[in-house]
Amino acid sequence: MLQKITPAEEAAGLTEFWSQRVLASANGDLFKVARGTGSTEWHSHDDQDETFLLLSGELTVQLRDGDVVLSPGDLLVVPRGVEHRPRAEGEARFLLVGPEVTSTAAGGKPAWSYAGGAPDRS
Amino acid sequence: MLQKITPAEEAAGLTEFWSQRVLASANGDLFKVARGTGSTEWHSHDDQDETFLLLSGELTVQLRDGDVVLSPGDLLVVPRGVEHRPRAEGEARFLLVGPEVTSTAAGGKPAWSYAGGAPDRS
Repeated sequence: MLQKITPAEEAAGLTEFWSQRVLASANGDLFKVARGTGSTEWHSHDDQDETFLLLSGELTVQLRDGDVVLSPGDLLVVPRGVEHRPRAEGEARFLLVGPEVTSTAAGGKPAWSYAGGAPDRS
Repeated sequence: MLQKITPAEEAAGLTEFWSQRVLASANGDLFKVARGTGSTEWHSHDDQDETFLLLSGELTVQLRDGDVVLSPGDLLVVPRGVEHRPRAEGEARFLLVGPEVTSTAAGGKPAWSYAGGAPDRS
């Protein structure tokens, strides 16, 4: 029997900011949740588009040519190779869709692929 | 400059029930919105998993071994080949994620792939 998933509840259970929890997989894409406060570093993903769907709070996705401010229910696709920096004044919870986990709290270092440099996997 | 999308607003603009509007594409998957009332026929998609994310209303996804009732914010992945029948008592609006449009109002006939039979594209 298939089970439904409630991403908002899954996000609430996360203890590490900007770390992603995989909820489901379909057609080679993962559905992941994360919660964020403050911001990440500027980065891009060379191998995958990243889709944000905001669940709660407010999330500003900074881009080199301007900011996109997401309210709950809003969706934004950041194409591969596009530098971005998600930032939340308070706390934002969001769903991410893409083929791989792009940030992990393991070791406190995200395994992002940085534009213009080697991925920081230290 | 990237633009955000508000699926709930896009769904509100749909005039045909169970017809899908493509909002965005990422990693080979389409993000689509639809609104439904009543139900579709029982069907399955042999070539793709179908992910439902409910935006508003209530949507029951009937499966051969039971029903899954979705509330707003709930997510359900229906794997390829699994027969299902979405049904809404009132009106449900939802986001769908998958590589192709699986229902269109063109001609009033969905281009579903029916389990056990040839796709009905008449």
